[in-house]
Formats: sequence, C-alpha cells, structure tokens
Amino acid sequence: MGSAQKPSIPKGMRDFSPIEMGRRNYIFDVVKSVFRKCGYKEIQTPSLENLTTLLGKYGTEGDKLLFKVLNSGNAFEGVLPEELENSNALSLKVCEKGLRYDLTVPFARYVVLHRNELTFPFKRFQIQPVWRADRPQKGRYREFYQCDVDVVGSTSLLNEVELIQIVDEVFTKFGIRVLIKINNRKILQALADVMGCPEKLVEITIAIDKIEKIGLESVKEELRGSGIEEKAINILEPLLLAQGSSSEKLSLLKEVVSNSEIGLKGIQEVEFILDIIKGLSLNNLVELDLSLARGLNYYTGAIFEVKALDFEIGSICGGGRYDNLTGIFGLPDVSGVGISFGADRIYDVLLGLDKFPAKCSETTQILFSNMDESVINFSLTQIQLLRKAGISCELYPQTTKLKKQFEYAEKNGVKFLAIVGEEEVNGGYLNIKNLETGMQERVNVKNLAEKMLNFFGN
Amino acid sequence: MGSAQKPSIPKGMRDFSPIEMGRRNYIFDVVKSVFRKCGYKEIQTPSLENLTTLLGKYGTEGDKLLFKVLNSGNAFEGVLPEELENSNALSLKVCEKGLRYDLTVPFARYVVLHRNELTFPFKRFQIQPVWRADRPQKGRYREFYQCDVDVVGSTSLLNEVELIQIVDEVFTKFGIRVLIKINNRKILQALADVMGCPEKLVEITIAIDKIEKIGLESVKEELRGSGIEEKAINILEPLLLAQGSSSEKLSLLKEVVSNSEIGLKGIQEVEFILDIIKGLSLNNLVELDLSLARGLNYYTGAIFEVKALDFEIGSICGGGRYDNLTGIFGLPDVSGVGISFGADRIYDVLLGLDKFPAKCSETTQILFSNMDESVINFSLTQIQLLRKAGISCELYPQTTKLKKQFEYAEKNGVKFLAIVGEEEVNGGYLNIKNLETGMQERVNVKNLAEKMLNFFGN
Repeated sequence: MGSAQKPSIPKGMRDFSPIEMGRRNYIFDVVKSVFRKCGYKEIQTPSLENLTTLLGKYGTEGDKLLFKVLNSGNAFEGVLPEELENSNALSLKVCEKGLRYDLTVPFARYVVLHRNELTFPFKRFQIQPVWRADRPQKGRYREFYQCDVDVVGSTSLLNEVELIQIVDEVFTKFGIRVLIKINNRKILQALADVMGCPEKLVEITIAIDKIEKIGLESVKEELRGSGIEEKAINILEPLLLAQGSSSEKLSLLKEVVSNSEIGLKGIQEVEFILDIIKGLSLNNLVELDLSLARGLNYYTGAIFEVKALDFEIGSICGGGRYDNLTGIFGLPDVSGVGISFGADRIYDVLLGLDKFPAKCSETTQILFSNMDESVINFSLTQIQLLRKAGISCELYPQTTKLKKQFEYAEKNGVKFLAIVGEEEVNGGYLNIKNLETGMQERVNVKNLAEKMLNFFGN
Repeated sequence: MGSAQKPSIPKGMRDFSPIEMGRRNYIFDVVKSVFRKCGYKEIQTPSLENLTTLLGKYGTEGDKLLFKVLNSGNAFEGVLPEELENSNALSLKVCEKGLRYDLTVPFARYVVLHRNELTFPFKRFQIQPVWRADRPQKGRYREFYQCDVDVVGSTSLLNEVELIQIVDEVFTKFGIRVLIKINNRKILQALADVMGCPEKLVEITIAIDKIEKIGLESVKEELRGSGIEEKAINILEPLLLAQGSSSEKLSLLKEVVSNSEIGLKGIQEVEFILDIIKGLSLNNLVELDLSLARGLNYYTGAIFEVKALDFEIGSICGGGRYDNLTGIFGLPDVSGVGISFGADRIYDVLLGLDKFPAKCSETTQILFSNMDESVINFSLTQIQLLRKAGISCELYPQTTKLKKQFEYAEKNGVKFLAIVGEEEVNGGYLNIKNLETGMQERVNVKNLAEKMLNFFGN
C-alpha cells in the first residue's frame, strides 16, 4: 500500500453492509409501522446537544461516557497552563457541545423548548443513534440506535396499556416469543419504607435489579454493604423469591406494604394495567416481577422490561413512567411514560432464531446482460419499462464476457438474467434465465413487465 | 422557571417536528425507492471516523470545519503548557476522532476496508447526516443529511447515463421540473492546456464555476488575479458565453481543443452520454454547460448539476466521476461516479412549490373518545381490530370532557372521532363523526374495519 493511509474505523464503531442494512431497516420498519398505527408521531433531535443539557442527567458514570466535541475555531485560546491540571474542568471549557447519550433527555429538552407548539398528550417516537464512550465489548458499541416511543402529558394508565400492546404486537410481528415483565416504582418505594430505610431506595433498587445476574446471596451481600440491616433484608427476601402468578405476588405484597399509602397505590396501578390487559388477549404473557427495577433513577411509576423466551440475551426492550423529566428544564408536572426497543439485541435475536424474512435482503430482480454494444439502447428501453412497473433491474455496465456478468448476478443474489443479443432485438423478445432454477424462457417484450410482475407478486 | 435550566440547542442545529419528519421521510422514501429500483444497495458508516481518515481530504478550509471529538478518559494527560500555544496541533493530540464531513470520503474508506467482501461494480447509496462547523446562516446548517448514490469499480459511461435517469425519475416523482447540467473535467483540463496554463486548472474551474453568481466581468477579474493572461482569457470567453444547444457548444469546443487528446476524449464522453439519453425520452432536459465545474477537485470525468426551473435556489443535486478516490487509502485504479441529492434544498423547493403530497403528514385516522370508564374495554377491543386491519387509531387516554378530546383530534389532524358510550356498547355500534364534513354515522362494529378501510382506501 506504499505511503497510503491504512483505512480503519474508531473502536466500538461499525460499518453496515447492504445485508445488515436490509435487516436493520426491516426492524425499524416494523416498529415504525406499529408506532404509527397507534398514533405516535416521529420527531428527530440534533446529534449534538449543549453539554449543559446532557451533564448531570445520567449520573457521574454517565457524565464520563459523554463524547464531548471540541469548540470550533481556536478552542484553547486563553487557556492557562495551570488549567491543564484539571482535565475535567478544562474539557468543559473547551467543549460546549456533546453527542446525544440517549433519546430521553433530548426529548425532554424538545418538549420544553416546543411546549407552545405541542398538543398534549403528545405521543412521539424517535429512532436515532446515540453515542457512549463505553469500553467496547461483544454486543456493546459506542454508536448504536435507540427506538423510543413515549407519551407525555397524560397520567392515564391507559398509556401503559397501549405501550404493552405495542410491545406485544412488535414482537408478534417479529416472530419472537417474549415475556413482558412489569413492576412499579411506588411498590419499591413502599418496600424501602417498610424496611425502615427509605433513603436507601436507590441502593435497594440497584441491588435487586441484579438478582437474575448475581443471585440472591450476592444481592443480600450488596444490601448489607449498603448498610441495610439484616431485619430489613429479611422483609425483602420472600418478595425477591416470589415465583407465583402476578396475582399471588400482589396478595403477598398487599400484606407486606399494607400500611403504606404509596405502596397500595402502586399495587392498584399494577392491578389496573393487568386487568385491562387480560381483556385484550395478547400473544405474549405480561407478568409482575418485583425484582425488576432497572438502573435508571427517573422512573416513578410503571417499569417495563421484555425478555426473549427462546434466545439467551439481556432485555430487548424496557422503559417506564417518569413524572418529572421535564422539570429540570423548567416545565414541572409533565408526566411521561415510554419504552425503548434495543435494535442491536433484537437484530441478534432475529438472526439467532433465523427469523429475518428473506425479503429484507432483497436486491436487484433482473440483471440485463451486456455483451453487444449495439443492443444497449434496446436493453435500456426494456429496463425503463420494467422500472416503471416497479421492478428493480439494471444493465451490467461493462460490455464483457457473460461469465463475469453471471458471477456478478450470483454474488448479488439477482434472481433473473435477461440475455439480450442482436437476435433477440430483431425478434422483439428477451431470453430470461431464472438463476435459481437454471430454467430459461423466451419472453416477448410486450408481455415482459406483466410476466415479471406476476412472478415477483407471488 | 426558577433555577431550572433554560433549554436550548447548539446553533446551526435543528429539531424536526412530526410534520417536518413526514415531509423529510417522503423525500428519503422517494429517492430510496428509485435507487433500489436501479439496483443500488444501502450502506451506513459510523458518524465518527478517525481524524486521519478525514484530514486533508477537503482542503485547508474543510479541515477547519471538521468537528473534532475529545478523547475519552483524561484527554489532557501529558499535555505540556507550551503545547497550548499551538491550538491546532494540540487539538489533534487530544482528539483522535471527528464527525463525518461528507459521505464520499467515508465511502472510499469503506470500499478499501471491505474490498474483499465487495463485488465490483459496487452500486451503493447512503443517506446519513454530516456535520460541518460552518457559520450558520439561512438554509445552511451544521448538521444536515446527504443522499449519495455511487457506482465504484466501473469506468463505463452507462453509469453516468443511469445516474441521469435516476435524477430524472426522482424529480419527476417529486413534481419538480429541473434542468440537468453536465460537463466534463477533461474538457476543462483541455481548455486550461489550450490557454497555456495547465497548472491553473483549479483556479480556472473555481472562477468559471462562479459565472452564474458573479457574472462574466468578475470571473475575468478573478482569472486575471490568478495571473492568467488576457490572451488566454480571450480563448475561454466565447465558451463561457455559449448559450446554444449542447451540440452547438460541442462543435465550438471541438475547434478550440482540436489539438488536445484529453479534450477530444472529454467531448466524446459527453457525446456518448447525450446520445444515449436522447433515446430514453426523459422528462427533463439534459444540457451541456461548460461553466459547470463545481468546487470539488476530485472529479476527473463527468460533472453533474441539477437546477430547479420553477424555484430560485442553488443546485439541488450534483456529482461527477472521480478516478482516484480510494487511492489515498491504498487501493488505486478504482473509478467511481456518483451524485448527491440535497435533501434540505429539495425540502425548500417542495414546500415553496406546494408539491408535498397531503399523505406525507398522515396522522391518526380515528380517535376513540373517552367519556365513560365503563366502556374502555369495548373501545380497546374495537381499536385492536382496526389496527389489525392497518388503520391507525387511538383511545384518548384521559376520561374527560368531549370538547377537550375534539380539540386534540383537530390539532392532530385526525379525520374521524369515534363516539362511544353505554348506549353504543349495548347496541353494538359506534357513532363515527367525520371531523372534516361534520357528518355523523352509526356504524355496526361488525362492519367497522371494512367500512373504514373503504373510506381510507379512496
């Protein structure tokens, strides 16, 4: 390669090939079609936000994972040598903008900035990449897409019901069997109250969020490590282990939090949702899971998480209700509820279960051979007619040996080769070769589009 | 707003509302469908590239406009105080990555990195945002989408023809009348040779590129300023002013460059393309424009530019052939040709000419009123059936006054309101109110989906 640059891409970043794009587009098309059918509208926000918008919203760890963008012009003008000692402060001085870390905070910012143009309840979906300076590892990337769907400005639990319907329909369309787990932050709050350590709610939820990953003993160890007493842990334990139906768990729970107003409210919310869902005969099971907390601290009501039943992978979808997300941008009392579909994991599940439809990697349907310059005009005319009929086709651009053109067709998964020579032009027909079956047929140009449409229509 | 943050977005950045998204999606859907029908396949590259990939590809000005991303971790570790004096060098030390500036260079990098997986000729399209730290002004943003379509690995001029067909079909679909201007870099090179200053090719092309903007006299002034002699300028002048048909211009040109091999080759290329195009009866005119040069220095053959005929705006599409783009990444002799559609300008033209189809801002088709909690289950069941039939509908989430729900429907452009109460449930029907005409009709739930499909099908 001589002195040429060796091409590379930054770690944790990916190129997407045509086949991968076909599959990804399939995923996005399915979720979008379901979102739209349920009345959600698409928005997009810029990739770059002011760092003041992003900082402090994702915890100390999140702040560290933000990609910061250097101010344009002379970014270091006026920086004093001693400022080099405090890398963090300096980075904020020389970088005013950062790349979007998720879609929720930009959405909250959007709602506040555009509140006078919006009609509430506002149902929106948003599918865009986000960036995190995480350590790259298998299945974790520094740039990845989120598919978020949220309702803001309505406290009605019917929104939670609708989101569960969306989850059910999306995964039914994908052919992925899932378990839809729900919980409620109010119940978790009540448990912390009953345990006598309401101030430890965050530690408790973080610990119990890990029960599936690290097991009961390690969770208890973590709770002890957070300074929670053995007596309090004992109150929690039976609930962590509860394996029965949702209604059995709710009964058990009602006893434990019987004196907690917020706890009973949380139970009532879960019961309302489960009750309505029962009447809708969904394809997938919805189940109360008291160990479900999820890392994010802004949930205030319902919490959702979706697991694939037939494929070993983390949650493929999750979300919940947040009562105060826009408060930080000056708009209090706007309640929201939403879920986010993990496109990368859904991709892995669909691939692992071989559920991608063949159609999603569709390619050119007919390749016109190019062996004789004198018939190019004839070919181009036929191609124009076929394209007008909606059939994808192309002329091999070089006049060359048929073998090479065959190879091109095969490698690109083209179904038909149209062989055109002087004889065909004079006779007003084409020789159409089905590259899957090897069968060849003479087709009059008058019937060409109709004939091919019939084939591809099936 | 008290101590809350005032929400804002960085200058030159935009949010896209549902209506804007509908229109943008319409633009992207049209170009994608045409690209696919012509056998082009979609790829995507990451937003962040290594700065080594981007630097030096866009000229000194371009380098300044790159958004650089601060290294994660302690970016300033080991930076010496004296390094603060050279802002440019320091920025490259603390930033290894940058945001994509266009789609062409990442595509060249992609082709080289994946050359063993690709089948050539490789026909790809790519629709992604790019970022430039340009001074924001009307119609110019720091984040905007490019829609690129290219063929690499084929020198055949049939690729140029296909790209012109694509341009013609895309703008026909949009209902925008355009002039498709073509030129050839070889002709420009020959002119510079004939003028006796081949080394001034860049200056000449930059100057004549401006003829429409600044006029003949200013172009001549610029040429003089570049040290080009009056005699040489006189050779160029008649060609700059040539207003006749493409074939008249070609005749004039043949005389001027009659001794230039490269010039005659360029003329031959243009003639080949125009000749084939003539047989395809396109909807828009394709015309040779010798003043067409475009700023980019990597074009080596055909140059394209598209202007809207009925709307005052710069070029809405452009491109050309580049013979050596992947050379810099170590893969010589890969010729490519491509064009890029300017989505933002096309948006402005479609809006200005009122050519966006009404369908592209489609919203919820039926809103179910919510006035009585006891009938929610009934409504949800009907909604489920309608959605299954492909109709977008939603239940107003709050049980509240009908007036508020009417307002919500109106502001969201909903066509029908389904009024449901105890009477309707008992009778097994709905009252469907057409919000455009004000007409109300009682519809039996058994015929609901069919009836609504009939309506929306029209």
